[in-house]
Amino acid sequence: MLRAVDIITKKRDGGELSKEEIDFFVAGLTSGAIPDYQAAAWAMAVFFQGMTARETTHLTLAMAASGDMLDLSDTVALAVDKHSTGGVGDKVTLVVEPLVASCGVPVGKMSGRGLSFSGGTIDKLESIPGFRTALTTAEFKQQLRTIGVVLTGQSGNLAPADGKLYALRDVTGTVNSTPLIASSVMSKKIAGGAQAIVLDVKVGTGAFMPNLKEAAKLAEAMVAIARHAGRRAVAVISDMNQPLGHAVGNALEVREAIDTLHGGGPADLREHCLVIAAHLLVLAKHARTARAARAELVAALDGGRAWAKFLQLVGAQGGDVAVVEQPERLPTATLIEVVPAPRTGYLRRVDAREIGLSAVDLGAGRATKADAIDHAVGLVIHHKVGDRVKKGEPLFTVHANAADKRAAARARVLAAHVFSARPVKPLPLFYQTLKSH
Amino acid sequence: MLRAVDIITKKRDGGELSKEEIDFFVAGLTSGAIPDYQAAAWAMAVFFQGMTARETTHLTLAMAASGDMLDLSDTVALAVDKHSTGGVGDKVTLVVEPLVASCGVPVGKMSGRGLSFSGGTIDKLESIPGFRTALTTAEFKQQLRTIGVVLTGQSGNLAPADGKLYALRDVTGTVNSTPLIASSVMSKKIAGGAQAIVLDVKVGTGAFMPNLKEAAKLAEAMVAIARHAGRRAVAVISDMNQPLGHAVGNALEVREAIDTLHGGGPADLREHCLVIAAHLLVLAKHARTARAARAELVAALDGGRAWAKFLQLVGAQGGDVAVVEQPERLPTATLIEVVPAPRTGYLRRVDAREIGLSAVDLGAGRATKADAIDHAVGLVIHHKVGDRVKKGEPLFTVHANAADKRAAARARVLAAHVFSARPVKPLPLFYQTLKSH
Repeated sequence: MLRAVDIITKKRDGGELSKEEIDFFVAGLTSGAIPDYQAAAWAMAVFFQGMTARETTHLTLAMAASGDMLDLSDTVALAVDKHSTGGVGDKVTLVVEPLVASCGVPVGKMSGRGLSFSGGTIDKLESIPGFRTALTTAEFKQQLRTIGVVLTGQSGNLAPADGKLYALRDVTGTVNSTPLIASSVMSKKIAGGAQAIVLDVKVGTGAFMPNLKEAAKLAEAMVAIARHAGRRAVAVISDMNQPLGHAVGNALEVREAIDTLHGGGPADLREHCLVIAAHLLVLAKHARTARAARAELVAALDGGRAWAKFLQLVGAQGGDVAVVEQPERLPTATLIEVVPAPRTGYLRRVDAREIGLSAVDLGAGRATKADAIDHAVGLVIHHKVGDRVKKGEPLFTVHANAADKRAAARARVLAAHVFSARPVKPLPLFYQTLKSH
Repeated sequence: MLRAVDIITKKRDGGELSKEEIDFFVAGLTSGAIPDYQAAAWAMAVFFQGMTARETTHLTLAMAASGDMLDLSDTVALAVDKHSTGGVGDKVTLVVEPLVASCGVPVGKMSGRGLSFSGGTIDKLESIPGFRTALTTAEFKQQLRTIGVVLTGQSGNLAPADGKLYALRDVTGTVNSTPLIASSVMSKKIAGGAQAIVLDVKVGTGAFMPNLKEAAKLAEAMVAIARHAGRRAVAVISDMNQPLGHAVGNALEVREAIDTLHGGGPADLREHCLVIAAHLLVLAKHARTARAARAELVAALDGGRAWAKFLQLVGAQGGDVAVVEQPERLPTATLIEVVPAPRTGYLRRVDAREIGLSAVDLGAGRATKADAIDHAVGLVIHHKVGDRVKKGEPLFTVHANAADKRAAARARVLAAHVFSARPVKPLPLFYQTLKSH
């Protein structure tokens, strides 16, 4: 007879847990038959001993199966999805989903909310008046079938074992475990019906993975799960030392996404979106190569098809289409201050974490889960690492709704910019790409 | 403000916890303000990262202070105590306490019950009809003052944080951690008022410490706690690969203790008791050297003083003195079988764990905490490792109250004896001695 204490001890001593043992543990965790203190001790043992790809896959599939499993086989030919590990200024989903859908590949995605310095797609979408982010499964499928694009929040009973384990990890110092992070992400994707997944693993000060080694470990772990679980995955490791694009803050990021969907937007954001979207088109077997995919995507962005799809998406989910057509009608801050560069030089550092935390302090994110969000506030960072900036030139713009917060953001974001007298190399957009196949 | 999750994370990352952090954690554990799942994750982090002597001492003192603290300063000049980590045939306390008391050094001790293969002093004492093992604190002090010797069970509110943590460790795979074992033992000794402690750390198949390295780590950890906590301690590491003495089982062990208190008994048991008792007399500042102590102890054993003190102890705690004066009146098994040696040879192995577990199966110990004990049953092992035994000579005697159990014990204990054709070196009694001062 299986006993939780024996499973904990086996993992503690570096053993590989069997499918049966992991299923028993996850079932017990879900039903409450295994108490939280045993799950906590187990998670800490996993923190120290790690898990093999096989164990991580069993854990992922067991957590995915702990609640509702979305079956999209009656809705789309091949369900593709993307996931970002979270960053500052990451509005890629807002661009990529309509862009890919506009090429004829249906994409339905359940997104999350912001966490600490990192923004969340659902929070951003809610800056569009009327936009509904809590669709039912029937609505999700219906919309995916009719217009080929959906962006909604996570349904209530998706991978409840993951929800429970994550809440426990959060208070027991066991968040930071690669196999536990990887299985948490992948369990939700698999429960959401994804057959092929593009994983955007961010690395840098504005990411949860502080260095390339940790990011690569996580990317490898997720790709290995996909391989073992019979899914296809591509993981890119992308830079998050500076914000992606210029805008940080909900309505500000929606505006920047709109610019990008119109064929404009910051160069780094456009390029990032094209790369992610190309992987999706290839994974969905719509394009044979990334190069072919890219040509089609560029045409969709520059020819207005991606934008048209975005309007369809907003309309279908109850959002005010007139507002996104006139983005100046999106929530706007009352205090807008352009902060000039204090000196001439090359930007050596534009610290994404400091900027992300500063945006949270302005009200763009939540310090605790109960906090409300101010969709209007945030920051626009005008320059990238490597840029030569002249003294007095606009360095960044603060969008605030309170004078004290504006002053605090001004000081903190100024300090987040580090200058160098000598030329500095720009940061790359991507470091590495991993594939399951 | 201190938060449990930060303390867990600090330990997880190998940090040294401060007194303040440990006090906070133990207070939270005791009151319930820190939930079990955080304590479990913390214990697992300690399992992997260990604790410094300073941390272990803070933990010990915090757990000792979590309930009643016995203050013996109004009762004895210097409170001494002994503790054994548990073994098979370990009836040392039954001999040593009256022996030391008979030399004029008062000793009051709270003992435990048997656990798995290891017997418990309280279970053994309860084979004496009428013997009370649940004295109140007032009775404890009164008896210590008048006759200088007390042997009772652990009081209800002694180190409750240790009780809670131990119960949690038992089901979360975190029993086997040297600092947690050391602080558990020492917290109870310190809460029991001990100022000087002799620690008998058993090593071998019949002990909880499987090898000398682990035993030495535990002994060092406990001695370091004593040093940091301003107590004095001597730790001996003693052999527990074969049973101590011959008898294993409650009434059988009481008989052997009686023999020893009469100046007889097995040579290894007598020697073991003299060594432990000598350390106690030196720690109590009654004797200046172990050699001087030993001379006095030998005289007390052989001159009848130790025995007289034992009779006083039994009488004071309500035990039937006539029974210990005629030990054949102690509980006796109905089925007694002398098992002869199956061959001639030297004993290479007399496996203490197998013999201990066999005694439990006969009914001498508990498989679960709720089981009742049969005081009559057990084993008498007639030979020691290194002995030359002739075929047909008595090898061991089974004392059973059921034929099937007798047969099972016969087979298992026979298999626990391993013969060699060549001479075998006897096992040492002691491996090492450590002192806090």
